[in-house]
Amino acid sequence: MASLIRARVATTPQMLQAFGDEALIAGALAFEAGLARAQAREGLIPAAAAEAIAAACREPPDVAWLAEAAAHAGAMAIPMVEELRRRVQDRDPAAAPMVHRGATSQDVADTALMLQAKAGLSLIEADVGRITGALRRLAEAHAATPMLARTLLQPAQLITFGLKAAQWRLGVADAVARLRRESVAALRLQLGGPAGVLVGFEGRGPAVAKALAQELGLGVAPASSHARRDAVAGLGAALAILVGALAKIARDVALMAQAEVAEAFEPLVEGRGGSSAMAHKRNPTGCQVTLSAAVRAPQLAATLMSAMPGEHERGLGGWQAEGPVLEELFLLAAGAARTMAEVAEGLDVRPDAMARNLGSARVAGETAEAEALTALVLMAGDA
Amino acid sequence: MASLIRARVATTPQMLQAFGDEALIAGALAFEAGLARAQAREGLIPAAAAEAIAAACREPPDVAWLAEAAAHAGAMAIPMVEELRRRVQDRDPAAAPMVHRGATSQDVADTALMLQAKAGLSLIEADVGRITGALRRLAEAHAATPMLARTLLQPAQLITFGLKAAQWRLGVADAVARLRRESVAALRLQLGGPAGVLVGFEGRGPAVAKALAQELGLGVAPASSHARRDAVAGLGAALAILVGALAKIARDVALMAQAEVAEAFEPLVEGRGGSSAMAHKRNPTGCQVTLSAAVRAPQLAATLMSAMPGEHERGLGGWQAEGPVLEELFLLAAGAARTMAEVAEGLDVRPDAMARNLGSARVAGETAEAEALTALVLMAGDA
Amino acid sequence: MASLIRARVATTPQMLQAFGDEALIAGALAFEAGLARAQAREGLIPAAAAEAIAAACREPPDVAWLAEAAAHAGAMAIPMVEELRRRVQDRDPAAAPMVHRGATSQDVADTALMLQAKAGLSLIEADVGRITGALRRLAEAHAATPMLARTLLQPAQLITFGLKAAQWRLGVADAVARLRRESVAALRLQLGGPAGVLVGFEGRGPAVAKALAQELGLGVAPASSHARRDAVAGLGAALAILVGALAKIARDVALMAQAEVAEAFEPLVEGRGGSSAMAHKRNPTGCQVTLSAAVRAPQLAATLMSAMPGEHERGLGGWQAEGPVLEELFLLAAGAARTMAEVAEGLDVRPDAMARNLGSARVAGETAEAEALTALVLMAGDA
Amino acid sequence: MASLIRARVATTPQMLQAFGDEALIAGALAFEAGLARAQAREGLIPAAAAEAIAAACREPPDVAWLAEAAAHAGAMAIPMVEELRRRVQDRDPAAAPMVHRGATSQDVADTALMLQAKAGLSLIEADVGRITGALRRLAEAHAATPMLARTLLQPAQLITFGLKAAQWRLGVADAVARLRRESVAALRLQLGGPAGVLVGFEGRGPAVAKALAQELGLGVAPASSHARRDAVAGLGAALAILVGALAKIARDVALMAQAEVAEAFEPLVEGRGGSSAMAHKRNPTGCQVTLSAAVRAPQLAATLMSAMPGEHERGLGGWQAEGPVLEELFLLAAGAARTMAEVAEGLDVRPDAMARNLGSARVAGETAEAEALTALVLMAGDA
Repeated sequence: MASLIRARVATTPQMLQAFGDEALIAGALAFEAGLARAQAREGLIPAAAAEAIAAACREPPDVAWLAEAAAHAGAMAIPMVEELRRRVQDRDPAAAPMVHRGATSQDVADTALMLQAKAGLSLIEADVGRITGALRRLAEAHAATPMLARTLLQPAQLITFGLKAAQWRLGVADAVARLRRESVAALRLQLGGPAGVLVGFEGRGPAVAKALAQELGLGVAPASSHARRDAVAGLGAALAILVGALAKIARDVALMAQAEVAEAFEPLVEGRGGSSAMAHKRNPTGCQVTLSAAVRAPQLAATLMSAMPGEHERGLGGWQAEGPVLEELFLLAAGAARTMAEVAEGLDVRPDAMARNLGSARVAGETAEAEALTALVLMAGDA
Repeated sequence: MASLIRARVATTPQMLQAFGDEALIAGALAFEAGLARAQAREGLIPAAAAEAIAAACREPPDVAWLAEAAAHAGAMAIPMVEELRRRVQDRDPAAAPMVHRGATSQDVADTALMLQAKAGLSLIEADVGRITGALRRLAEAHAATPMLARTLLQPAQLITFGLKAAQWRLGVADAVARLRRESVAALRLQLGGPAGVLVGFEGRGPAVAKALAQELGLGVAPASSHARRDAVAGLGAALAILVGALAKIARDVALMAQAEVAEAFEPLVEGRGGSSAMAHKRNPTGCQVTLSAAVRAPQLAATLMSAMPGEHERGLGGWQAEGPVLEELFLLAAGAARTMAEVAEGLDVRPDAMARNLGSARVAGETAEAEALTALVLMAGDA
Repeated sequence: MASLIRARVATTPQMLQAFGDEALIAGALAFEAGLARAQAREGLIPAAAAEAIAAACREPPDVAWLAEAAAHAGAMAIPMVEELRRRVQDRDPAAAPMVHRGATSQDVADTALMLQAKAGLSLIEADVGRITGALRRLAEAHAATPMLARTLLQPAQLITFGLKAAQWRLGVADAVARLRRESVAALRLQLGGPAGVLVGFEGRGPAVAKALAQELGLGVAPASSHARRDAVAGLGAALAILVGALAKIARDVALMAQAEVAEAFEPLVEGRGGSSAMAHKRNPTGCQVTLSAAVRAPQLAATLMSAMPGEHERGLGGWQAEGPVLEELFLLAAGAARTMAEVAEGLDVRPDAMARNLGSARVAGETAEAEALTALVLMAGDA
Repeated sequence: MASLIRARVATTPQMLQAFGDEALIAGALAFEAGLARAQAREGLIPAAAAEAIAAACREPPDVAWLAEAAAHAGAMAIPMVEELRRRVQDRDPAAAPMVHRGATSQDVADTALMLQAKAGLSLIEADVGRITGALRRLAEAHAATPMLARTLLQPAQLITFGLKAAQWRLGVADAVARLRRESVAALRLQLGGPAGVLVGFEGRGPAVAKALAQELGLGVAPASSHARRDAVAGLGAALAILVGALAKIARDVALMAQAEVAEAFEPLVEGRGGSSAMAHKRNPTGCQVTLSAAVRAPQLAATLMSAMPGEHERGLGGWQAEGPVLEELFLLAAGAARTMAEVAEGLDVRPDAMARNLGSARVAGETAEAEALTALVLMAGDA
C-alpha cells in the first residue's frame, strides 16, 4: 500500500501501528535476540554472545534503509541479519557468527508476522467485545419492539428488533470463536533453519524452540511449517468471515437508514457522514467502511489459499505473498470492527418507524416467539 | 455446470452422485416427510396427515420437470411443495395444507444442502484416510532415505524423503481436522419458517426441530441461520484449504517427476497419463487434477464469503449462490482426494535419483535430525 | 454436472445446451473432421482418408462412456481420438493413423471450447439486445419523470428515471463492447501439435490452420497459444464485467421494489417470484438470479487469471481449469442477461411513488439537465 | 500504508511515489484548481475567484492531518475541500463558496485516482518496453538454439529457445495492448456533481468538463460514471492479466533455473538472490517477486468486479473499495514489470544444458519449424 490516506479510511491507527514497520522490525529483532538467548540457555552459544546479540537488537535499523535493502535482497531478513552481524562485530567479534545461527529468513518473517498477528487479534477482540456488548443491550432493550421481517427485500412477517440484534450478535460471536480457534494453530513460532530440520542445533532444536516460543508468547509447532501453510490460510479465512459477519450488520443498518424506511440510523458524530456537496446529508459512513471491507476481504483470503501449494521445502512466490495480504486482512477487520462498534453503541433506533412500516405492509402478529428466540440466541452467542 | 465430461475429469462418480439431483430431491423430501412426522409427534398435525405426506414423499418428482419449474419459480422448494400438495390432496385432502407447514423454501434448500454435504464429507474422509495411511507408510519406509531439500526451487540442505512425506501428511491431517470442526457448525438442520421465528408452531418449534434434526442426522441450531451464513463460508474455506494441502503434494510430485529430477513418479495406470499425440508419455495426471482443483477452489471459498452480508432476514442473491458453489467445492475436493489417494498409494519413489541429485548439488549431511523430526511430525499428524 | 436443478435456476436452457456434452463432442469432432479435410486439401493426407475420418466423425460417441474414459485418461481427446481411430480402422485401415495427425489434445480442447464460446456469445448478444432496446424505450418514455437520486443510500438530488435507465443501458453497452473486443482475440483456432510447432505438417501448418479456422468459423492465431492464456482470461473478465453491469440494474430494481420505496417492480409473471410460505409475496426473482450471478462471476474470472502462469509449453493444472470455469461464466452471464431482459422489458414503473419519495425527502428541482444528459448517454450507448 | 518494507519488496519506488499521498493530494488539488479555472472560462465564476482557488491549491495540506480527517469524515474530499475553503477565505472571501462548486467528493476521488493511474501506466510501459526489447534480442540470438519442449512438466518435442522467448514476448505484448485499450475507457475525468447531473452549471457542464479534462490530460466521458464502474474493473483486469503474462516468464525461468535443469538463470546481481542462511545460494528473486504478484493480482481484479453492482446513483462500500485495490494492482504490476525487465535483460542462457537435456530425453528433430514460427510470433508481438 502506497497511500496512508487511502489506507487510513479503511482501518484504525492502532492496527496501522501493529502492522507497521517498527512493529515488524521489533518482532524480527525479538526473534533474533530470543533465539540467541535460548541457544545460550541450551549451551549452543556462550551467554556473552547472546548478550551482545540482544544488545545489538535493541537498536533497530532505519526503516527506509531496510525497505530498500530488503527489496534489493528479496527478503527483509537478509540485510537485517547482515546489519545485525556488523553491529555485533563491533561489540563482540566472536559473537558475530552466532547471530541468526541455524535460522533462515522465513523463520524471521513468519515469526514476526505472527507476533504482529497476535497484537492485531487483541485489538480486534477489544472492538468486537464492544460490539457484542452493545448488541446485547440493544437486544434486551428492544426485546419486544416489533418490526417487519424482510426476505428477498420484501415484507415477510413480524419479528422484533431485539431478535435482529441478537442474530447480528450471534453471527459476530460465531465468527470470533472461529478466529480464536484458528489463532491457536497460527500463532506459533517458526524455527526450522534452511531446510526445516534445524541443522546445527545438536539435537537441542526442540528445547530451543520451546524456550524461544515461550519468550515470544507464541505456541510451539511440532516442526517447521515453511511449506505447510494451512494455518495462515485458516487465519485469513477466519478474518474474512468475521468481516462478513460485521458487514451483515452494516448491510441491515444501511438499508434501515434509507429515508423511506427510517428505522435506524448511525450515531450522529460531528464531522462524520457529511458530504462535500450537501451539508445536510447524514451518510452511513461506518457501514460504508465495513461494507467496503467485505468487498475486499474474501478475495484476500482466497489469495492465502491460492498460495498454499508451494514448491518443495520452501516455495517461490507463494508464501512470500502472505505477509502483505494478511496485513491487509487485519487492517480491514480492524476498520470494520471499530466502525461497527461505534455504530452498535450509538445506534439510533426508531420503534415508531418500525411500527409504521409494519402497518403499511399490513403485517401483524405477536412478539412472543421472537422474544423467546431472542433469549436462546443471546445465550448461544455467549458460548 | 453443463458438461458431465468436463465435470467428471475433475471429480469422482460418487461425489457427482452425492450432489446429484436425485440426492438433492431425496434430501428435500426427507425434510418434508420428517417435518410432518415431527409435527405429528408434537401434536401439531394429525398422525394420519403425517403418514400421507411421508407416503407422497416416497415418489420423487421428475428431475427435468423440477429443474424447469424451479428455474421459473426462482427456487426449487416452490414447485416441489406444490407438487407434493397435489399428491397429498389425492391421498388425504385434509393433509394437503399440512405439507411444508410453517416452513419456508430456504429451510428446505439449506437442509437438503447440508444432507448432501454430510454424505460428501464421508466420501472425502474415506479418500483422505487412504492418503494419510499411505503417507505414513512412505514416511516409515523412507525414514532414512536422504534427498535434497529445495527452497525457492534451489538446492538447500539434506532432508529425508520420509520427512517430506510426513510433512505432506501433517498438512492434510491439519486440514481435515479443520474440516471436521467446521462441519460441526455447518451440518445443522435449518428450520425457521418465513421469517425465522417459527410462527404457527405453538411454542413447539424447538421440540420439532430437535426431533427432525435427529431423524435427519443433523445438528440443531439455536435459531434460524437464514441470514447468518458464516458456517457455510467456514465449511467452504475448510474444503478449499484441504484442496490446498492436497495440491502441495501434487506440486512436489510433479516437480520430482520432471525428467531431469526423476525422484518420484505417479503410479503407472493402464490408459492414464497418456497423450493423444505421444504414446510414450507418462503425464502426472493425478497431480494435474489436484493442481487444477487448487486453482479453482480458493475463489469458490471467497464467493461464499462474499455472499455473507445478505439483506435483512433472508438476502437477495447471496445465499442463493451458495448451493452451486459449495457443490463445486465438494466436487473438487473429492477429485483431489481421490487422485492423491491413488498417487500416494502407488508412488514410485527412486532413492537412487535422490542420492544422485544430492551428489550433483554437492549437498551432504546426516539424516538423524530429519529422522527424529519425522517421528514428531507423524505423531502430530495422528492427533 | 452434478445438479441440473441448481444449474438451471441460474441459467438458460439454451446456454446449458451450448455448453452441454453434445455440443462439446460436436465441436471436438468438427475439429478432427475439419483437420483431416484441410490436411487433404494441402496434400498431407489422401482425400479418401479425410472422407473416412469425416464420416466417422458423424457418429458421436456415447457421453457417459466418454465422461468415464476422459476422467481415466485425464483428457477428453485421448479416448475420443482412440475411439475415432477404431471406427476409421473399420472403414479404411490406411486412414486410421491419419486421425488427429499432428494435433494434440489441447488443440481439440481449446478449439471445442471456443466453438462453444462462439455459440454462447450469440445467445448473450440476443438477450443483451433485448435489454438495451427495452432500456432505450424506458429512457425515452421516462425522459421527464422526476425521481430521487440516491447516493450512499441517502437522498441526494433530483434526476429522472429516464436518465437512470439510460445509465444502466450505457453500462451494459460498454460491457458488451468489451466482450466483443475480447472475443476477437479469444475465438481462434488452436492448432499447435504436441509442442506448438506443427511438426509433420511439412511447412503447410499455416495453410492448414487457415483452412480449418475458416471452416470452423474461428479466427487464426499467429501461433499456438497452448501456454499464452491471456485471451481466455480476457474473455472471462469481460463476461464477469458484463454480469456486473447487469447486476447494477438488478441492484437498483430490487431496492426500488422495496415496499417502502415502491418505485418499480419486476413484471408479474404467473408462478414466478412466489414464496413457498407466503402466497401473496412478489419476490424480485429476476434480480435474485442476476445478483447471484454477480456474487459468483468475479471469482471465476480471477480463476482464469490465476491459471495463466503455466509451466513451459503446456502447463499442469492451470489451463485444464479453464474449460469448466469459462463454461460457468457463460452460464451465469446467460442467466443474468435473460432475467434482466425480462425485467427490463416488463418493468412496472411507478412515477407517482417517485414523486412521493421526492416530496418526502423535500428534494425539488428541474429535469432539464437530466433530460439533456439522457440524450447524450443514449447516444454514447449506441456507439 | 502499514508496512513500507513489505510493500517495497513487491514494487518499485517510482510506483510507490505515483500512488503515494503527495501524488494523491496533488491530483485532487489539480482537479479543484482546474475546475475553478474551467468554470471561470465559462463565466460561471469570476476569474479572480479561480485565481484565488488555484493559488490556495498550490499549498497542499499535511498528509498526516488529512489522513486522520479523511478517516473521520469517511472521504478525503470532505476535509480537503473544507481546508481549501478556509485558505481561500483568507485570500478572497467571495471566492470561498466557489471552491469545489457543483462537484462532489467522488468526482475528486475518481479523477485523482485516474491521474495516478495515468502516471502508473507510463511507468509500466517503460519497463514493459525493456522486456519486449530484451525478449526480441533473446529470440533472435537463440533463433536456432534447440531445447526441449515440455508439456505437463514432461519432455515433449524439440523447440528452440528463440521460440520460447518470442512466445513470452507475444504474451506480454497482447497483455499490454489490452491494457492500452482499457486505459482509453478508464482514464477519464469524473465530473458529475452530487447526483451526476451537474446541477448549477447552467448548461455549461459539458464545456467545463471538456476544458478541465484537457487541462488534466484525461479523456471526457459522455456522463458521470459514479455508478457505472466497468471501466475501473476493466483496467484492473488488464493489469492482472499483464501480471499473469509476466509471471508466465517467471514460472519458466524458475523451472529452467532448477539445479537439475540448469538451462537459464537470472542475472547475478551483487546482494540479490542470496540467503540469510546459505551464502552460496543464488535464488531466482526476480521470479519470486513476479510469481508473488501473480498470486495476488487476480483476486484484486475480482474485487473490482465484485464492487460493480453499486446502489443507485452512488453506491455504499463498493466503489470506495476501488482506490486501494487499483493502487495495489499498479504496485504489483510495476514490481513484476521491473523485475522481469531485469531478468529478461540479463538472462543467463545455457545452450549446452539445453542440448544435454534434449539428449537425455532422447528427443531430436529439426529447428526449421520453430525458426519459421519465431519470425511470425515476433511479428505478431510488434502489432
